[in-house]
Amino acid sequence: MRICVINPNTTVSMTDQIAKAAHSVAGPDTEIVAITPTMGPASIESHYDEALAVPGVLEAILASERSDRPADAYLLACFGDPGLDAAREIASGPVIGIAEAAMHAASMLGRGFSVVTTLSRTIGRAEELAERYGMAKNCRGYHACEIPVLELESNPRTAAILVDACRVAADHDRSDAIVLGCAGMADLARTISTDIGLPVIDGVAAGTLLLQSLITLGAQPGRRGELARPLPKIYTGILSEFGHHH
Amino acid sequence: MRICVINPNTTVSMTDQIAKAAHSVAGPDTEIVAITPTMGPASIESHYDEALAVPGVLEAILASERSDRPADAYLLACFGDPGLDAAREIASGPVIGIAEAAMHAASMLGRGFSVVTTLSRTIGRAEELAERYGMAKNCRGYHACEIPVLELESNPRTAAILVDACRVAADHDRSDAIVLGCAGMADLARTISTDIGLPVIDGVAAGTLLLQSLITLGAQPGRRGELARPLPKIYTGILSEFGHHH
Amino acid sequence: MRICVINPNTTVSMTDQIAKAAHSVAGPDTEIVAITPTMGPASIESHYDEALAVPGVLEAILASERSDRPADAYLLACFGDPGLDAAREIASGPVIGIAEAAMHAASMLGRGFSVVTTLSRTIGRAEELAERYGMAKNCRGYHACEIPVLELESNPRTAAILVDACRVAADHDRSDAIVLGCAGMADLARTISTDIGLPVIDGVAAGTLLLQSLITLGAQPGRRGELARPLPKIYTGILSEFGHHH
Amino acid sequence: MRICVINPNTTVSMTDQIAKAAHSVAGPDTEIVAITPTMGPASIESHYDEALAVPGVLEAILASERSDRPADAYLLACFGDPGLDAAREIASGPVIGIAEAAMHAASMLGRGFSVVTTLSRTIGRAEELAERYGMAKNCRGYHACEIPVLELESNPRTAAILVDACRVAADHDRSDAIVLGCAGMADLARTISTDIGLPVIDGVAAGTLLLQSLITLGAQPGRRGELARPLPKIYTGILSEFGHHH
Amino acid sequence: MRICVINPNTTVSMTDQIAKAAHSVAGPDTEIVAITPTMGPASIESHYDEALAVPGVLEAILASERSDRPADAYLLACFGDPGLDAAREIASGPVIGIAEAAMHAASMLGRGFSVVTTLSRTIGRAEELAERYGMAKNCRGYHACEIPVLELESNPRTAAILVDACRVAADHDRSDAIVLGCAGMADLARTISTDIGLPVIDGVAAGTLLLQSLITLGAQPGRRGELARPLPKIYTGILSEFGHHH
Amino acid sequence: MRICVINPNTTVSMTDQIAKAAHSVAGPDTEIVAITPTMGPASIESHYDEALAVPGVLEAILASERSDRPADAYLLACFGDPGLDAAREIASGPVIGIAEAAMHAASMLGRGFSVVTTLSRTIGRAEELAERYGMAKNCRGYHACEIPVLELESNPRTAAILVDACRVAADHDRSDAIVLGCAGMADLARTISTDIGLPVIDGVAAGTLLLQSLITLGAQPGRRGELARPLPKIYTGILSEFGHHH
Repeated sequence: MRICVINPNTTVSMTDQIAKAAHSVAGPDTEIVAITPTMGPASIESHYDEALAVPGVLEAILASERSDRPADAYLLACFGDPGLDAAREIASGPVIGIAEAAMHAASMLGRGFSVVTTLSRTIGRAEELAERYGMAKNCRGYHACEIPVLELESNPRTAAILVDACRVAADHDRSDAIVLGCAGMADLARTISTDIGLPVIDGVAAGTLLLQSLITLGAQPGRRGELARPLPKIYTGILSEFGHHH
Repeated sequence: MRICVINPNTTVSMTDQIAKAAHSVAGPDTEIVAITPTMGPASIESHYDEALAVPGVLEAILASERSDRPADAYLLACFGDPGLDAAREIASGPVIGIAEAAMHAASMLGRGFSVVTTLSRTIGRAEELAERYGMAKNCRGYHACEIPVLELESNPRTAAILVDACRVAADHDRSDAIVLGCAGMADLARTISTDIGLPVIDGVAAGTLLLQSLITLGAQPGRRGELARPLPKIYTGILSEFGHHH
Repeated sequence: MRICVINPNTTVSMTDQIAKAAHSVAGPDTEIVAITPTMGPASIESHYDEALAVPGVLEAILASERSDRPADAYLLACFGDPGLDAAREIASGPVIGIAEAAMHAASMLGRGFSVVTTLSRTIGRAEELAERYGMAKNCRGYHACEIPVLELESNPRTAAILVDACRVAADHDRSDAIVLGCAGMADLARTISTDIGLPVIDGVAAGTLLLQSLITLGAQPGRRGELARPLPKIYTGILSEFGHHH
Repeated sequence: MRICVINPNTTVSMTDQIAKAAHSVAGPDTEIVAITPTMGPASIESHYDEALAVPGVLEAILASERSDRPADAYLLACFGDPGLDAAREIASGPVIGIAEAAMHAASMLGRGFSVVTTLSRTIGRAEELAERYGMAKNCRGYHACEIPVLELESNPRTAAILVDACRVAADHDRSDAIVLGCAGMADLARTISTDIGLPVIDGVAAGTLLLQSLITLGAQPGRRGELARPLPKIYTGILSEFGHHH
Repeated sequence: MRICVINPNTTVSMTDQIAKAAHSVAGPDTEIVAITPTMGPASIESHYDEALAVPGVLEAILASERSDRPADAYLLACFGDPGLDAAREIASGPVIGIAEAAMHAASMLGRGFSVVTTLSRTIGRAEELAERYGMAKNCRGYHACEIPVLELESNPRTAAILVDACRVAADHDRSDAIVLGCAGMADLARTISTDIGLPVIDGVAAGTLLLQSLITLGAQPGRRGELARPLPKIYTGILSEFGHHH
Repeated sequence: MRICVINPNTTVSMTDQIAKAAHSVAGPDTEIVAITPTMGPASIESHYDEALAVPGVLEAILASERSDRPADAYLLACFGDPGLDAAREIASGPVIGIAEAAMHAASMLGRGFSVVTTLSRTIGRAEELAERYGMAKNCRGYHACEIPVLELESNPRTAAILVDACRVAADHDRSDAIVLGCAGMADLARTISTDIGLPVIDGVAAGTLLLQSLITLGAQPGRRGELARPLPKIYTGILSEFGHHH
């Protein structure tokens, strides 16, 4: 099976890191195709960035669907799950976001989890997604480490700061698990887990595995209602190519 | 004061109709600037269309903000409220969507309202917005008339079908008001209201008036948290202009 | 248009202040009629006070409705929104309360707001109203300044105490806006907003503007269900006049 | 112990019926004092009626409290639970409403119950109370028999209509119990229960027993927060006597 | 009437204490039958203990039902309410749990209460029950005193520690009442209440009284839906006797 | 890796069917160990059956944990997820139930799903679990086919009845997916899905795959709070062996 992991931002080194996280858990028969979009922001740290990451995400899915070997499923590897509903309309297989994947996985490990994210300004979106996924009751707290996305990799103190933030979050929230709030933290999940003695869920790994599961279940999206294919129509201006999705 | 009413789709005749609805309620000192975006779909009838309407909406706001006379507030005139959070980060004044405006207004007229919309596939988004705005309890039912957006104007039976749909909805849901689920229904609100004897809320008119109210209150968005200005960063590809928002 | 702003308590100086707040935002064609009831408590600081303010509120609406020039809409200018549902049954136009108005307005300015009120004993009622209006998720905290209603005007430290309370509330709750929890704080909204850099919503101003909006929308309450006119019947004792409402 | 059962309307025959329902379940050591207020509406079928029933309810409690032998607890015998919070501030013992009592009791007999009430216009209030008491999830449906309150006693078909309405409600809602939505239905609870084979809860009986329970528990209301005694203050006009509650 | 109070653990001295608490509030015509199960854990401090207490609870109910004089109602005297739904299927009269009883009773005394329990690891179960009973909004905090169940009686500092924990809980949560989170605290309710000036609810006493109330109401469980008698079937192994419940 | 799939009832043919469903999706490196408990009911169709299935489930987990090769994870293959919290305390790896697995999986395929189950009396438990897992909003309807569990296999009309029930459910609820409400329906998921054109989720397959995912993630349950190992203590009677879990 082939899973397309889309990094919604345009930073290639982050795509590489995401690909590594996906590979590290994928099954022997699973091919991971990691994509950097051709358009959009270098990182996603605001609603504005996220909204403008969506066209690149959708273009990547359309390209895959039109190719000789469409992916069997798609993972949106940014914790805002940008473009999730739209992606589900155009992909022939399942699509999930890493916030969705991580929250669901964490909820199966105990009653409550904490989200530890990058900048506090992104907490609103995390709250909104928790609400949407039915996880508002399970998510007992949102905590920011205040490291910008692209600094996660370069900052020598990232691991130490995150371990601290996760420990404080778990104690404060009486949590049974931690959810990491950024794809850029994927490589630290096991380290933090060992340090604090709680499961720490990275959405890239969780999402890859959940998609593998949905593919194995043969779960093709239904097309009778909300997720029917978009009606073909004229698109204008620099987005005109998006009208040719059918 | 100047209110910028953005039609998130690219159909000019629909922008004209939206402008008319806004003008019909605006105060004498309020200038309505109706905008058709330079990019995006001809109509919005799916999550895909909605997601791809957002760049055009944001571009229109950026253009206004960079102009000599920025608007004092912005109305997103599509019932999916596309790009609302992103718009709030870049606009210097208040931004609301017409679903938001209509639902809040309807909730002040009684305990329950019904939403009557175009295609049933859009109901999921309406439910999500009702949940987000705290209106899930107030919104007692979602009903589709199954007329596509761009046919609303041309179909000679639109008014009759909508009156019927609204009456059935109100009776079934024991509703105190009707919310119209598409900007393209704006001109029919008063007719339907007279026919069925209940308030019928069009979000374009409601949104224009609520923005006038927020401007008069002097309510400038706070910039301390979630709605701080997006950090400037590199944007790639056909969206590269969006990196220069500051 | 004519908006009747009812001060549910019997303190005339407070009615004057409320009238001033309403006037300061009303449109050029809007007449504000501020009413002090003929019966009821000097201030409202308990459920008992609030319950007993209701007959005076309803009497004022009945008097307006029976007059030559009934008001087009009514504002209940106490943060407990006393008698709201009853008022909606007897008024021919829209009726809203200032808690309702302020919470809805604040919710359109960001994801979360804080309520800053007078005595902490009134917080229970504010919570109940937030729940009713669908704002429980948006209202992130309730904070009391512990100044009694009638002391707000006379206490020289009111402004300073409120600025402090609002700043602490906003920081603690990560709020995007403040809602003032008493009509007697109306004159301080702009000062506090300037000081703390966040929108501060006074319900008297917000309510006046929202009623203007609802009147302009032509939104007459429906009479088919819950808000049908009360059935005429015999009222006994000192309330016997209330039986003649038809 | 002495329980004061207050009929919030002024119809003496209904007070008699309520007293009978309370007596039929009260313990041997419980004295039931049934009160008809000196002021207010002959029946309660609207928010207006309910709001204006409150002063009479509060006056009755004040009179009891000032008497030689204050009641140990108070039951508000109208399904809108009028004045509940205010009553709790001035009563020295527990106060509950019959909607509160019936809903709580029904919820202990299974997962879901249906409310069967008089006029459909009162359903909104029942929904609001279910929400307040945490019973929204348990209350699976609201059903009206469309018999006005004062006709319940005189209409020869009342029992037959109610049996039918309760059976239909139970089947439709898959309910484990029925809650009767009016004090005037108290005498029919056992008949209906026998007929439909489900527990049928009348709030007057349930409330009398729950108050007996709370008195036996020694549960005196706390006075530290929301339920502290109202501050004494000047009351104006025909309500001036209410200022002397201390 | 006869109420069977089942101590779900097998510690006889705790059954004695529970019996005393039930007796202290039961009416003159109420016979309390306190039962220690023949199987199960010595105390309940985990989900594991609770799950394995259930067979003993159900066996006790079956024994009562098969006896010459079945109890009229059953109280499950452990704060996890173990086996509640199953018990309701096999008992011919009402069954309630002490968490259920205490939470409902506390909710009738004001808007919010705090739960004070033994070990913090039991808080998750208390949260789940509050959610189930509709009390999540009313229960403002969960607090552990970290005294194991069987040490409550022997530890000389139990009373002092609990008074402190209850006072801190009430202040922190702005609560109107305290709910004690363990049957082993029953004897301390009045002392704590006197000390902190708030009602303190012990579920054993509350449950005894609520069952008395439900019996007096004649509330027999309905058998049409979820609570129909279990279908007879083969049970295997050491539990084979449980197949003979019919 | 080794996944222990526990059939909570004692019917061996059903264990075989469950094992088949698990095998059909398990990875090449996954060993499925299917267990029939030594004690408990032949099928689970009531709360009583479910409660009494729990000791057998826990015994099976204890046996595995004490063995030379403990399982890496456990699946509870009954739609009531019996003993889930208790199992999590004693298992060294993740434990999930099939209702949990199916509901989470279905929620990732669209906004709403329907549950189609065996007897309508089990719907209450399904509702409770949906609430617990945060899926109440996603689960749009519960539908019973009224075929008893052990008849699913023998009834020649099972497939036809289920296809019909699923189609009706999907249309009525506007659902994007179906969740099968019994492990005994596992073999029919693909047939139904093909027939109705929507994903149909069987919890045995979904749960096997989710556990594989959690094991691959290295997600060991945290032991700091609610899921700490049960304290060792004396167990009495036929359950005395359960005291030796440490």
